[in-house]
Amino acid sequence: MTTPAPTHRPHVVIIGCGFGGLEAARALRDAPVDVTLIDRTNHHLFQPLLYQVATAGLSAPAIAAPIRHLFRRQDNVTTLLGEVTGIDAAGRQVHLKDGSALAWDHLIVAAGATHSYFGRDDWAPLAPGLKTLDDAFEIRRRILLAFEAAEKEPDAERRAAWLTFVVVGAGPTGVEMAGTLAEIARHTLPGEFRHIDPASASILLVEGGPRVLQAMPEGLSQRAREQLEKLGVEVRLNARVSAIDAAGLEVQTGQGPGGADASSYRINSKCIIWAAGVAASPLGRLLARAIGSEEAQALDRAGRIRVQPDLSLPGHPEISVIGDLAAAQSHAPGREPRPVPGVSPAAKQMGRAAAANLLRRLRGEAGLPFHYSDYGNLATIGRNSAVVDLSSPLGPFRFSGYFAWLFWLFAHVYFLIGFRNRLVVLIDWASAYWSAQRYARVVTGVELPGPPGETPP
Amino acid sequence: MTTPAPTHRPHVVIIGCGFGGLEAARALRDAPVDVTLIDRTNHHLFQPLLYQVATAGLSAPAIAAPIRHLFRRQDNVTTLLGEVTGIDAAGRQVHLKDGSALAWDHLIVAAGATHSYFGRDDWAPLAPGLKTLDDAFEIRRRILLAFEAAEKEPDAERRAAWLTFVVVGAGPTGVEMAGTLAEIARHTLPGEFRHIDPASASILLVEGGPRVLQAMPEGLSQRAREQLEKLGVEVRLNARVSAIDAAGLEVQTGQGPGGADASSYRINSKCIIWAAGVAASPLGRLLARAIGSEEAQALDRAGRIRVQPDLSLPGHPEISVIGDLAAAQSHAPGREPRPVPGVSPAAKQMGRAAAANLLRRLRGEAGLPFHYSDYGNLATIGRNSAVVDLSSPLGPFRFSGYFAWLFWLFAHVYFLIGFRNRLVVLIDWASAYWSAQRYARVVTGVELPGPPGETPP
Repeated sequence: MTTPAPTHRPHVVIIGCGFGGLEAARALRDAPVDVTLIDRTNHHLFQPLLYQVATAGLSAPAIAAPIRHLFRRQDNVTTLLGEVTGIDAAGRQVHLKDGSALAWDHLIVAAGATHSYFGRDDWAPLAPGLKTLDDAFEIRRRILLAFEAAEKEPDAERRAAWLTFVVVGAGPTGVEMAGTLAEIARHTLPGEFRHIDPASASILLVEGGPRVLQAMPEGLSQRAREQLEKLGVEVRLNARVSAIDAAGLEVQTGQGPGGADASSYRINSKCIIWAAGVAASPLGRLLARAIGSEEAQALDRAGRIRVQPDLSLPGHPEISVIGDLAAAQSHAPGREPRPVPGVSPAAKQMGRAAAANLLRRLRGEAGLPFHYSDYGNLATIGRNSAVVDLSSPLGPFRFSGYFAWLFWLFAHVYFLIGFRNRLVVLIDWASAYWSAQRYARVVTGVELPGPPGETPP
Repeated sequence: MTTPAPTHRPHVVIIGCGFGGLEAARALRDAPVDVTLIDRTNHHLFQPLLYQVATAGLSAPAIAAPIRHLFRRQDNVTTLLGEVTGIDAAGRQVHLKDGSALAWDHLIVAAGATHSYFGRDDWAPLAPGLKTLDDAFEIRRRILLAFEAAEKEPDAERRAAWLTFVVVGAGPTGVEMAGTLAEIARHTLPGEFRHIDPASASILLVEGGPRVLQAMPEGLSQRAREQLEKLGVEVRLNARVSAIDAAGLEVQTGQGPGGADASSYRINSKCIIWAAGVAASPLGRLLARAIGSEEAQALDRAGRIRVQPDLSLPGHPEISVIGDLAAAQSHAPGREPRPVPGVSPAAKQMGRAAAANLLRRLRGEAGLPFHYSDYGNLATIGRNSAVVDLSSPLGPFRFSGYFAWLFWLFAHVYFLIGFRNRLVVLIDWASAYWSAQRYARVVTGVELPGPPGETPP
């Protein structure tokens, strides 16, 4: 904690401790800099398994590690629980919500992304998305309480609405959620209710595009869809949500981009989960303003800020942006630049690259262009099934089904932070696997409703 | 699920699925009755370890099991998530908050207790108590955020208030909380902060009576106090709380029951935890009214309802009250009746006794008086220390320290519901033990504060 510095040690502020920020701070371990790592929560979240918390398969502490604890032995890192509300590029300061300000010599912004409702933010309370632990608890609450409400509901039509679960968006999160919901309905809950059959629940996966998992090759998309249907998920493709209310949603089919025509229909559902859109953190806009750029020019359509090849901002080599907030290109030697995808390995690689470029600048050298090493793509669908698309020097290596699932499982557990978490997650999965049980089915923060007349339906 | 009954099967309604209600429902497994088990939450809570959730040692799902799941194979039990708001003894119905009613032939009320602020309910938001998982999350949030706030606080006096933790009440919960808080401050957090030394935190245990753990023999109380002080807890006996506000509390010392005199002083603290009083569920009052009794006669000072020797209510053999809501006597053959203590083994035994008496009544026999088998008493203080007072035919068997702690640990893990939970709790403890870490240090549901002027301090 007391490393006497003969000269002024540059102060690096890192905003956000997701995969990008965490790696950047770690990569500065032996660097002659002081790092302050700011996050709005006290934990680093292993987001790839967040859907497991939302579907009662894992407890929150199994996938969340206290940031302070992760850096307890890295003396040049100070952890700060705080929310950045302003960035001053000229004055080299960030402003925090509590009114304080923090000066920096170098800034790494890794504030990530949140879900986007494509301008329909009024849908947020009706169809929660999944980015934080609080989101996961809210979704878990809604799923489990929907079955409870169905058990008590004498009216058949309303009961059916409680037993209809709609997941909007068939990216990796939507596919995981739908597959796991089908498992809960078909394997976990049967036998526990006396008035309903949970296995009769409808799980709908509604996707605006023509296939599931669009980042995957078409063959694997087809496989994923078949596996979902085998699990009992109804997959509705080319189906765009046009309205959501407390009792359900409206869906438009057909290729045209709009207009309520004959091809729109309604789904009655009391539990809608949003896995459709991603929007970069609002810090992107703050950054654009801070460096004096037009928003329209500095940001892409998802609100991500366009970065230089070395991940810095134009005219501001001392500011780097990494992870889901960055609209970055991968610059492989001898190849055309390609967009970097919004996945955790990319965020980690950007974190290490930004730290390395920062050290180069301290030595008076120029930053190197970022090159994303793509090892592939994998997505799980449910117990026993997943799709894997690995890149290898020999060409792509693609498989699906049980071995893909085992591969997915070990890959995820391997990258989980901390030995204890790995062990507990493996035990939970082993016990879930053999018993079809999901042990984290605890609902808290519930205010039970009063008589029907007194509360909205 | 379809057990055809030749005659009308009596309907037993059990209110509450704590230790008492759970055991009663289980004891009716093979009985020719239909059981409806009503609880306000969806889980049975292993309350003896709730303080571990509040102090970030265990995750919530490790100590909470879904009630439906526990009874999935007991076909005569229907689980209902609901809140009882009225009891009609003459019409044999309970009324639920959602406006519905449920008819019963036999009623077992096991609604438990909550914390009591001795008429100062305005203290509740200032000094939360520990009865539910939501309570535990709130306390965990306050403890962890107090250290975060101290790290950011430049003013020495205010920093000291953030680092002063006060536990009010030195019963088992207060002793466990204080001991564990001391461990967190001295062993878990050091090294993780850059501006404060968590080990400098003050942990105060404030108790109105003359010793800690008053249900224990005096020698063990003394031991417990010594162990607490060794852990770094300041124990203040004969100290009664007379006021609580957002910045601290006021304590009166001396024997007299009141009046702010020279012997009262103030403690500045931003984290106060209430472990002082227990009040029976408000259903006690509803029950007294339902059977036409004067409250003053039917209830004792803690709001518990006085039951007959067979645990039924006077004039209402079809209503039994068990657990912490019952002011019951133990009727050992050849001995004076003695009050039954409010501990989980007593609640379990009452659950089994109420079920057995119900079956006797169905056969036309009279209920038997309840006899509490007291196997002893144990309390833990922190890692490595506990006090144990066992009853045996050879007389009491008392010990404290490390072996008492091991005994406490295995006794608690043994009684935990479910093999998986036992295993996970043991792993968590083993890893906590070797690393001094507490892995469940996740804070959620936090709205970070704005500038000092905008929010109350």
